[in-house]
Amino acid sequence: MPSVELKLPHHRYEICVEPGLLGTLGERVKQVAGHERAMLIADAAVAGTLGQKAIRALEAGGYRVVMQAVEAGEENKNLVVVSRLYQTMVENRLERKSPVIALGGGIIGDMAGFVAATYLRGVPFVQCPTTLLAMVDASVGGKVGVNLPQGKNLVGAFHQPRLVAIDTESLGTLPKRELRCGLAECVKHGVIRDAELFAWIEKNLAAILGLDKAALVELVRWNVAIKAAVVMADEKEAGERAHLNFGHTFAHAIEAAQEYGAPSGYHHGEAVALGMVAATRLAVAAGRCPAEVLKRLMGLLERIGLPTRGEALPETEELIGYMQVDKKVSGGKIRLVLPERMGAVSVVSDVGLGAIAEAWEGLR
Amino acid sequence: MPSVELKLPHHRYEICVEPGLLGTLGERVKQVAGHERAMLIADAAVAGTLGQKAIRALEAGGYRVVMQAVEAGEENKNLVVVSRLYQTMVENRLERKSPVIALGGGIIGDMAGFVAATYLRGVPFVQCPTTLLAMVDASVGGKVGVNLPQGKNLVGAFHQPRLVAIDTESLGTLPKRELRCGLAECVKHGVIRDAELFAWIEKNLAAILGLDKAALVELVRWNVAIKAAVVMADEKEAGERAHLNFGHTFAHAIEAAQEYGAPSGYHHGEAVALGMVAATRLAVAAGRCPAEVLKRLMGLLERIGLPTRGEALPETEELIGYMQVDKKVSGGKIRLVLPERMGAVSVVSDVGLGAIAEAWEGLR
Repeated sequence: MPSVELKLPHHRYEICVEPGLLGTLGERVKQVAGHERAMLIADAAVAGTLGQKAIRALEAGGYRVVMQAVEAGEENKNLVVVSRLYQTMVENRLERKSPVIALGGGIIGDMAGFVAATYLRGVPFVQCPTTLLAMVDASVGGKVGVNLPQGKNLVGAFHQPRLVAIDTESLGTLPKRELRCGLAECVKHGVIRDAELFAWIEKNLAAILGLDKAALVELVRWNVAIKAAVVMADEKEAGERAHLNFGHTFAHAIEAAQEYGAPSGYHHGEAVALGMVAATRLAVAAGRCPAEVLKRLMGLLERIGLPTRGEALPETEELIGYMQVDKKVSGGKIRLVLPERMGAVSVVSDVGLGAIAEAWEGLR
Repeated sequence: MPSVELKLPHHRYEICVEPGLLGTLGERVKQVAGHERAMLIADAAVAGTLGQKAIRALEAGGYRVVMQAVEAGEENKNLVVVSRLYQTMVENRLERKSPVIALGGGIIGDMAGFVAATYLRGVPFVQCPTTLLAMVDASVGGKVGVNLPQGKNLVGAFHQPRLVAIDTESLGTLPKRELRCGLAECVKHGVIRDAELFAWIEKNLAAILGLDKAALVELVRWNVAIKAAVVMADEKEAGERAHLNFGHTFAHAIEAAQEYGAPSGYHHGEAVALGMVAATRLAVAAGRCPAEVLKRLMGLLERIGLPTRGEALPETEELIGYMQVDKKVSGGKIRLVLPERMGAVSVVSDVGLGAIAEAWEGLR
């Protein structure tokens, strides 16, 4: 079955991609974190269905399972919810060797991962992402964390999982909007690293949106391999891991401005789509990138059903203010990842505020 | 000047021990974490004196300093206070390269270290311990964390400092009770690793309690070297680092039972003194250790002015209950560190509850 290995100097783990994998979760987890108890932190939206399936599989593997369902949503990804999770774990006497298993999207994975990184100074962690976004992005690479009232992901850690178990069948019940959001990160991987992947998505989009089993496995495996390669080259984001932020400095400003989880607001993948368009527009205007890249990017995003224009965005000045407090800021400079051609990007920190403002205006 | 180097596979740092070191803090910090801003987290009790001195030295080194004073006390070592510290750091735009400097005792160091470990997924950290306890124990080794309502240090991380800067002059204004508490950990180091250190303390106790400059430097340097050697051999407490817990499983139960920071309660070093006596009494009763060790231990603790009997301790049953939820519990077993002879200990997990109860009773 397709699996990707992530090797770091201090740690290695497998990212398994397989339809139906959740049914054998217990044996898989046992191989990497044998213990008699396990903590399952599940998105409340899937706790009744996938959660029950995971519990059965973990019990079959010999675990006594404590499950806590958590409402997803950025507004719940905070230290208050994390404190409740700690409390459940203390009360159920979870120990240093008891694995924490995240079942859900990126918010659940980030928060459960932060709990695993910090409970008793760190316990084993397993990611079971159930959304496309979490599968191809957040579940791989060890970044975990929570939000502060002042901004997203301002508190966290690097805590690599022992295993990432991806059951592509869970995409069958994923709302279509979330599938599209996940595709935004896949498109991003194409732009920053792999023109071939970009072309493959252009060609196979109908099969992907139609949930063709083989297409989904191929899509996830390919994207996970790219993400894993970037993380292996630069675990702590000292260098090229920053390329993954393509579109994200703009996206984070959009998300900060609309407050987390505003029901009428953009979801993360949608904000990333807008951010990628803004960054590429800026690169083209600066003569750093052929206009063709912007055209293909916008074309594919539109076919997927992702936004490429944001008429209702807040004032440009407000958005730039949020960019300036982003945690990627270094020495007060806004660092942007800009495409050079399809499949290659670079990090730039000498872009003037005027050019950034123009890129925002271009979205309207 | 005396300094100890701590080398780990992924990281190395210096532990500098020097009277008056605080006056040159700025240049020292600049060598390991150059940046234009620094966050100083200071014990409120020393913020006005040592804090102002540290600020001047840091400013002389080129830093713009944000200081936040924090009331020490176990009851403040929690996620609420940590959240306030995060907020100050965001508001003052502290960045990924901005060092966090802890100035105070172990509680301040643990909490500031946890903030440094998790703010923006980790920023540089410098320890400036001002109590003997923090100098010889908590400031070295990278264990950081906060308490939960259910117990001490249940949340945390391993986050090694870039530098430990120990100014032994700060011991001059330390309350005598806190000096005695620090000596409890020095005595512990003697029992677990170094019979020569134990004998040296027996011989030089008057000079130490009289704050003789040379004796204090020698005491701190020697103890720091032992702590560093143990951490180097076993950073994450997979093995022999557990030896540092000698007396602590008992001590944590005492502290949990009296609730943190009860004004009439035992301080940490006092609880450790009682815990070492209990553990040694247990070892002697089990025929694992000569009675002479218990006699010398109790004799030295009494000369220091530390408790060796605890008439007012809670019920033994309650204390054992707290031991069973300690985070060192593995597979439900209470693990104890027991002396074999002066300078050597071993970890034992097959001690019956009856023997543990007898050790508690022996303290009354």
